[in-house]
Amino acid sequence: MADELPNVLLLGPPSVFKSYERQFSEKFHFLKPKESSIPLHQFLSNHAGSVKAAFCSASVPITSDILQILPELRFIMTSSAGINHIDLHECRKRGVKVANAGPIFSEDAADMAVGLLIDVLRKVSAANRFVKAGLWQQNGVYPLGLKLGGKRVGIVGLGSIGSDVAKRLNSFGCIISYTSRNKKAHVKFPFCLTIQELAAKSEILVVCCALTDQTHHMIDKNVILALGKNGIIINIARGAIINEKDLLDCLQKGEIGGVGLDVFEHEPDVPEQFFELDNVVMTPHHAVMTEESFRNIYELVVGNLDAFFSNTPLMYEVV
Amino acid sequence: MADELPNVLLLGPPSVFKSYERQFSEKFHFLKPKESSIPLHQFLSNHAGSVKAAFCSASVPITSDILQILPELRFIMTSSAGINHIDLHECRKRGVKVANAGPIFSEDAADMAVGLLIDVLRKVSAANRFVKAGLWQQNGVYPLGLKLGGKRVGIVGLGSIGSDVAKRLNSFGCIISYTSRNKKAHVKFPFCLTIQELAAKSEILVVCCALTDQTHHMIDKNVILALGKNGIIINIARGAIINEKDLLDCLQKGEIGGVGLDVFEHEPDVPEQFFELDNVVMTPHHAVMTEESFRNIYELVVGNLDAFFSNTPLMYEVV
Repeated sequence: MADELPNVLLLGPPSVFKSYERQFSEKFHFLKPKESSIPLHQFLSNHAGSVKAAFCSASVPITSDILQILPELRFIMTSSAGINHIDLHECRKRGVKVANAGPIFSEDAADMAVGLLIDVLRKVSAANRFVKAGLWQQNGVYPLGLKLGGKRVGIVGLGSIGSDVAKRLNSFGCIISYTSRNKKAHVKFPFCLTIQELAAKSEILVVCCALTDQTHHMIDKNVILALGKNGIIINIARGAIINEKDLLDCLQKGEIGGVGLDVFEHEPDVPEQFFELDNVVMTPHHAVMTEESFRNIYELVVGNLDAFFSNTPLMYEVV
Repeated sequence: MADELPNVLLLGPPSVFKSYERQFSEKFHFLKPKESSIPLHQFLSNHAGSVKAAFCSASVPITSDILQILPELRFIMTSSAGINHIDLHECRKRGVKVANAGPIFSEDAADMAVGLLIDVLRKVSAANRFVKAGLWQQNGVYPLGLKLGGKRVGIVGLGSIGSDVAKRLNSFGCIISYTSRNKKAHVKFPFCLTIQELAAKSEILVVCCALTDQTHHMIDKNVILALGKNGIIINIARGAIINEKDLLDCLQKGEIGGVGLDVFEHEPDVPEQFFELDNVVMTPHHAVMTEESFRNIYELVVGNLDAFFSNTPLMYEVV
């Protein structure tokens, strides 16, 4: 019966596949290079004739090399909102459609951004360690935190996630500005043309933009120094938007107040120097990892693969 | 010169006094039993004739015993929003005015409630430990969290803090209900007459009410079981509103999903059994501890002591 199901190449695989493997497998026949002893390129060559659709996570680069091995490929569904791992130029050239998670993860990502920000400002994780170490009884008073309300927050990238962050922080009384590829016509918040300008007028930066050639290492030493030594940066977008070496250097020199990082330049490798700093809060690329978003992405992926094979319109097509 | 300043009895002392000691001491002459080798009751007797005003923290019970020793006392300024440590009945009888922090701490307390809630739902502190222990590289995927949006949240006590919590959680898409001494006339959220009813219809309880004889141990095993085994409780009010023994028992039996606790029944003592549980996030009675709120409370206390000694109206007079 599996032979009658449409073939889908599985790359990664995405975490949502593991959660819904049984349900996915009732609808499609997945080709799994990860479970094969054959090297990836050989595996792809062997199945080149039958692979029309692929389902991938953000952790697997879909390069022009890979696309060349798969001449029949016509659709890539990524489980991520980010699409920086896919060679979109090559996809366009080859007539390969690409769809992503659209705004499915936006609210969860925005919630995590706010959670990390409150954690850094109010020292939640560090205070939790303080209590668990029995230091409350021993030392008494714990250092003061900083109030969220009234803080000048710069949103870096006012797409779906950035807008959800702004909406939330607005309810806390924050003063929002943003930078984005373009000034948004119907947005009341002040727009800054450059990240440098945004950092100079902000106390907090929340990074919500896509990773592109333009945003790679966009937040470097200059931006951090413009934000100032009490400044806070939250990153729930992609690690490489921040120059991690510059950030670590500034943290070690006290040139920045604190950071909340869900993403890193070389995941899952995190520079161990971060671990010793109480003003650094880290989560393992977990901003969108909820039971609810996984249910939603499962339904989207099944719907889009069905749509592709029945030649009906895709949701969240980006190429 | 200190002799010309009005005497103020200092009990606790409040943390804000330590932060602003120099400024406070330029305006008032503080009598400090904590720094004296004389026992408290003897110290109070010695100064009974000259103590008209006291400045205290929530950690010092102002009992009828203490009030009897101080027949000239006419004003108690507490640095806290809670007033459960003061025998208000005795104060009324003796014509002692009492003022508290009013709504000065409300926003900070509400921010911390939201921070603790996101931490518990999205496992922020636990995920931070996971990264710091190097387990991301080793184990890979971290367990899924739960989405905040769409959750049914019951606010326990819709005063100043509870209203600020509701306003914030509304922006995350939560579905709010509340219980309070009385149904609020101009509030759109559904009202529940009892905590049991609120727990039964909620997935999350956020405790924001005052500690009184009526609210002592209001959240017990029955309420926790009504909330259900995936339920979450956040407490930024007073520890004794929850029966801590029942709570611990339910946590150990998996009869509740998780808790975020800023307050405990016997602070700074925290049952060590809490420390081992990944679904428990604790802060050391720190919900209002920000630089900004300390500045505000400093200004309020100085203003109220000035007002008392010059016989002009007090801010946030509760008795």
